[in-house]
Amino acid sequence: MLTYSFENKGSDSLYEFLYKKIIEDILACRLAPDEKLPSKRALAKHLSISTVTVENAYNQLVAEGYIYSKPKSGYYVCRISSPVMNTGSLKPAYESRSEDSEDAFCGVDLAMNSAARDSFPFSVWTKLMREVMADKSELLTVNSPSTGVRELRCAISDYLFQFRGMKADPDCIVVGAGTEYLYSLIIQLLGRQKRYALEDPGYRKIAQIYRANNVSFHCIPVDKSGVEISALENSRADVLHISPSHHFPTGIVTPVSRRYELLSWAEKSPDRYIIEDDYDSEFRFSGRPIPSLQSIDHSGKVIYINTFSKSLTSTIRISYMVLPEELMALYKKELSFYACTVSNFEQYTLSAFIRQGYYEKHINRMRNYYRNQRDTLMSEIKKHPLFGRVQIKEEDAGLHFLMKVDTPLSDRELIEKGRQKGIRLTCLSEYYHKHSSADRHTLIINYSGLPREDIKRAVGLLFEVI
Amino acid sequence: MLTYSFENKGSDSLYEFLYKKIIEDILACRLAPDEKLPSKRALAKHLSISTVTVENAYNQLVAEGYIYSKPKSGYYVCRISSPVMNTGSLKPAYESRSEDSEDAFCGVDLAMNSAARDSFPFSVWTKLMREVMADKSELLTVNSPSTGVRELRCAISDYLFQFRGMKADPDCIVVGAGTEYLYSLIIQLLGRQKRYALEDPGYRKIAQIYRANNVSFHCIPVDKSGVEISALENSRADVLHISPSHHFPTGIVTPVSRRYELLSWAEKSPDRYIIEDDYDSEFRFSGRPIPSLQSIDHSGKVIYINTFSKSLTSTIRISYMVLPEELMALYKKELSFYACTVSNFEQYTLSAFIRQGYYEKHINRMRNYYRNQRDTLMSEIKKHPLFGRVQIKEEDAGLHFLMKVDTPLSDRELIEKGRQKGIRLTCLSEYYHKHSSADRHTLIINYSGLPREDIKRAVGLLFEVI
Repeated sequence: MLTYSFENKGSDSLYEFLYKKIIEDILACRLAPDEKLPSKRALAKHLSISTVTVENAYNQLVAEGYIYSKPKSGYYVCRISSPVMNTGSLKPAYESRSEDSEDAFCGVDLAMNSAARDSFPFSVWTKLMREVMADKSELLTVNSPSTGVRELRCAISDYLFQFRGMKADPDCIVVGAGTEYLYSLIIQLLGRQKRYALEDPGYRKIAQIYRANNVSFHCIPVDKSGVEISALENSRADVLHISPSHHFPTGIVTPVSRRYELLSWAEKSPDRYIIEDDYDSEFRFSGRPIPSLQSIDHSGKVIYINTFSKSLTSTIRISYMVLPEELMALYKKELSFYACTVSNFEQYTLSAFIRQGYYEKHINRMRNYYRNQRDTLMSEIKKHPLFGRVQIKEEDAGLHFLMKVDTPLSDRELIEKGRQKGIRLTCLSEYYHKHSSADRHTLIINYSGLPREDIKRAVGLLFEVI
Repeated sequence: MLTYSFENKGSDSLYEFLYKKIIEDILACRLAPDEKLPSKRALAKHLSISTVTVENAYNQLVAEGYIYSKPKSGYYVCRISSPVMNTGSLKPAYESRSEDSEDAFCGVDLAMNSAARDSFPFSVWTKLMREVMADKSELLTVNSPSTGVRELRCAISDYLFQFRGMKADPDCIVVGAGTEYLYSLIIQLLGRQKRYALEDPGYRKIAQIYRANNVSFHCIPVDKSGVEISALENSRADVLHISPSHHFPTGIVTPVSRRYELLSWAEKSPDRYIIEDDYDSEFRFSGRPIPSLQSIDHSGKVIYINTFSKSLTSTIRISYMVLPEELMALYKKELSFYACTVSNFEQYTLSAFIRQGYYEKHINRMRNYYRNQRDTLMSEIKKHPLFGRVQIKEEDAGLHFLMKVDTPLSDRELIEKGRQKGIRLTCLSEYYHKHSSADRHTLIINYSGLPREDIKRAVGLLFEVI
């Protein structure tokens, strides 16, 4: 009869130990297929353990398919083909790494266009979260509609109306965990067989996302007013993905005449749509925000998309899109089976944050902060003895500007030299899909995430490199 | 000269009003293309407003491309092709709807397999969130790696080891906002040209997601041990998506012999992989959880996927997958440009929730709750005079069981009659991709979200319907 010593059972319970031992015997063929196991009572007596312990072990073995029971007969061993079993019980040791080592660069970073790190109003956010927990606990466990909780969609709609002059029906808004996720929903909505068009130069991630989704796309050259209409026509693209209010990285604002041309292009075919990515429209330093393309679209051709990850903090993942009515109907039909990707907690907290005026205040404060940041950086640059070797472009908006430098180095050499000196740089040429020689030696100066105390050092390093 | 009355400017500032009026004149062709505008000083004097106001309006019009400036000459009107403009200023009125109306059913619901609504430990979660806010504010603004913050991945790895006996390197874990999102990452990782295989019957959303992603898939019949190997071979599929520890909706546990056969199938080609969806393995009522397929896979063929949305509350969107090393390397190369879709707040809160033992306690409490729920429901069913007309199957695990009923009604009629009587029902036949007559008249009784006080009423209604 099966005999096991329970001395080495370690922290396992008796039944777990017995269960593991029998598995070992089955996998090592010491118990043959269809061999009959001792009865529960007999084995219990033999091993001096309780019948319940054996019963638990046998039940677990039945549940997992190692043994089977025949009514009124007993338990038998199953036929198992591949006798390799991981019976490991010691905890595996994984290389211990700290969180920081994943992002080890600790010099001055002008390449990353992240939000200022310490700007997020934690105390307000915590207060609102606590209020939401207290006041909304009922609603917090009710599934959000696929498009997001209505309260947040209404808050976004009101915000868009008041600060962006846009009419956005809350029922046409879709909330999601980041614009990247929303892009993938748009691809599913419009169809993978469509031909997409992107700006060249343009934000690299957008091309990466289309590529990862196996969607064919064309890169349309950008002139001083935005994407070139003739190139767009020639590309035979269906869907145009643009940032007309503040193009990244050039900072170009598409003027209203080009906007109407783009809308006319879209209206020429029922298949055509424009994705308007309005990611940092909040941070215009002078005058009103540029009106969105969506607000002058009367044919339901514009999908408006924006994010709170840029304007609040990149570690909060909430974005949204405003769909034309027709596409919203299609979304409801085809894609509303998807659960909303943002948790209710954060949806209600953000909703309170907007409703109670904190978002507006935050944006105003951040706009001032970034303007100040830019001004300080500019004045440091202008003071530098080598200022004559650089030329600044597009400094009116957003979280970066362009700096054309007079240097014998290639763009690659610039970046590498920067790396050696402890300053991370990025060049406009890196954002071109098709290579263009026109914009060589142009650095993109992302100042939004640069700590105030590093500005002087950053400028010093910058001029050492060029 | 341009003359505007500022009487009707409403809440607009002077400069905004002037800016809008000039746009109206341009779009109505009252100002012709290339017409020169009055100088800032002249217009200011004419309208009795300050030069700065005119300057602001002109600057905004230049920024948006309505007018252009010629150095040392003045401002001119741009040529704009499509003179349709939305100058709307009144807030649009959207139909007012309450949150509830999106999910208006208020009878007894046995069709939805949601978590119990009031079971989520709010006070603990709030406490931890507050702690995270206080202790981690530094880390909260540091971007999470694409795969999720390391602290959470380590907590998940430890949990999987302790409670699931699995070895999962934290560096092979990817955290995302829901399993649906992770499925889309898997498709991008393995490739859209691959042929996928799903269980038939099976969880409907999975097929919907593959369809929405234009991925071709085959439905493999499920016998009493899980997917049929011969049908799987014949399908020529590359990737198999299964729930071997608790199949939905039949509740089948795939025995270890079939598991090895599945692994052998996967090992036959480098293109083959198995997606193991372990969505409710925590809720086995007797014995240990069934070991995962991942834990007996030695060839790097299994992608393990699980979610906290099922075990905690569906309104928290955090899921994760464990990738084989080779696929993790591919992920890092091809997909790590994606930002993590879960906010840092929730990642650190969940991490503390697991580390401090609350998750284990919660699972244990919920397992008891669901067991109790099932026992109460079963005893009510057994007490019913018409009990002889039903047959219960698969009641050992998960949050539902099957009930075969002896009825002259078709499945569609059963559901419709239920709807009329105020009980929402679902049938096994609805989960088949290819129609099978074998499993007609089998209801799926989802009891997890059923309020305790509704159980008696639910059973009464159930027997009225059949």
